[in-house]
Amino acid sequence: MIPEHTSEVLDALDPDLAARLRFVLEADSLKLVLRRNSITDGSRRENTGEHSWHLALMAIVLAPYSAEPVDLSRVVEMLLVHDLVEIDAGDTFLYDDAHAASKRERETRAADRLFGMLDEPVRGELRAAWEEFEAGATPSAQFARALDRVQPVLQNVYTDGASWRAHGITAPQVVAKNGPPIRAGAPELWPHVEAMLEEAIRRGALIR
Amino acid sequence: MIPEHTSEVLDALDPDLAARLRFVLEADSLKLVLRRNSITDGSRRENTGEHSWHLALMAIVLAPYSAEPVDLSRVVEMLLVHDLVEIDAGDTFLYDDAHAASKRERETRAADRLFGMLDEPVRGELRAAWEEFEAGATPSAQFARALDRVQPVLQNVYTDGASWRAHGITAPQVVAKNGPPIRAGAPELWPHVEAMLEEAIRRGALIR
Repeated sequence: MIPEHTSEVLDALDPDLAARLRFVLEADSLKLVLRRNSITDGSRRENTGEHSWHLALMAIVLAPYSAEPVDLSRVVEMLLVHDLVEIDAGDTFLYDDAHAASKRERETRAADRLFGMLDEPVRGELRAAWEEFEAGATPSAQFARALDRVQPVLQNVYTDGASWRAHGITAPQVVAKNGPPIRAGAPELWPHVEAMLEEAIRRGALIR
Repeated sequence: MIPEHTSEVLDALDPDLAARLRFVLEADSLKLVLRRNSITDGSRRENTGEHSWHLALMAIVLAPYSAEPVDLSRVVEMLLVHDLVEIDAGDTFLYDDAHAASKRERETRAADRLFGMLDEPVRGELRAAWEEFEAGATPSAQFARALDRVQPVLQNVYTDGASWRAHGITAPQVVAKNGPPIRAGAPELWPHVEAMLEEAIRRGALIR
């Protein structure tokens, strides 16, 4: 909630600018949403704001590994907004199938409120980027979704399976959840991810 | 430092991909660099990874307020990489003029090492984005630099001057450091920032 003193200052501005600044301030809360993954030094869980930055940077660095030529700026835009809904809906752990059942409904309500803070056309633009990511039907969305799966695997490999071990995640679960989206959006990366999983199993970082 | 087990896995990959993944893993450390600003709930300092995400999102949301038409995807790319050098060089507080004297030298060394982890062409692309931001000579860089100044002001307004008060920062300092870049890159925002500063002074959140 925006404090009253800030709200009063914003109320005095042009309404379109005020709406944009309210949204910008509200977005700050994504830094408070904690994911199950640890950052690479293992010192704490990753938050969704920094996760979104990392994915957007990965899109630029790994662009040649996309399955098809993509609009890179669209991929980056999708990755910057794809998890904003977690401000209201919270993070849904990839392996928590029970919680996943309500994910779409929780996140749609969040999208209505958050993107609804903005006026058109930016409201529709950001909403469309989120919807495109969710639908995963375009090459750009598929590449973005693949990166969203590659990053936690890299973090787990680096931290000797910190989040896999904490939640008793097995290799078949990792393959079932990550294989299809990574093969769809960044197929050249999948054999390398598989090799990392094999090594993690050998080291005891991942249950066979 | 990448742990030996991860390094061995990466060594077995195609060298170009291995370099990109090492860079992606190294970039994770930006989440450990703490800035002087608090996130909006005041609970902790902001890290540079989440700061970079917030700025990139702001660029999309506030694009119409750029001084000149810009290449928005270039602005976003610059904001995603502009602070990567802080992994080695640390954050330099805007108001710490003594530390600022060595900033360019520290950050150039960091850029050499970090972007040097990548092969061409991506090495040169990211380095060029960082150099463009630093030089601040293009309309895209000027807009990016303006946002980098607007965001901490918004956070300070929201938190009743948490970082201004913690460091004894005065209104003339805030105006001197932030006025020129904001007026250059997003001139329509400056009167609104000034109004927020006036209100902050009235409330005692900022020393006159």
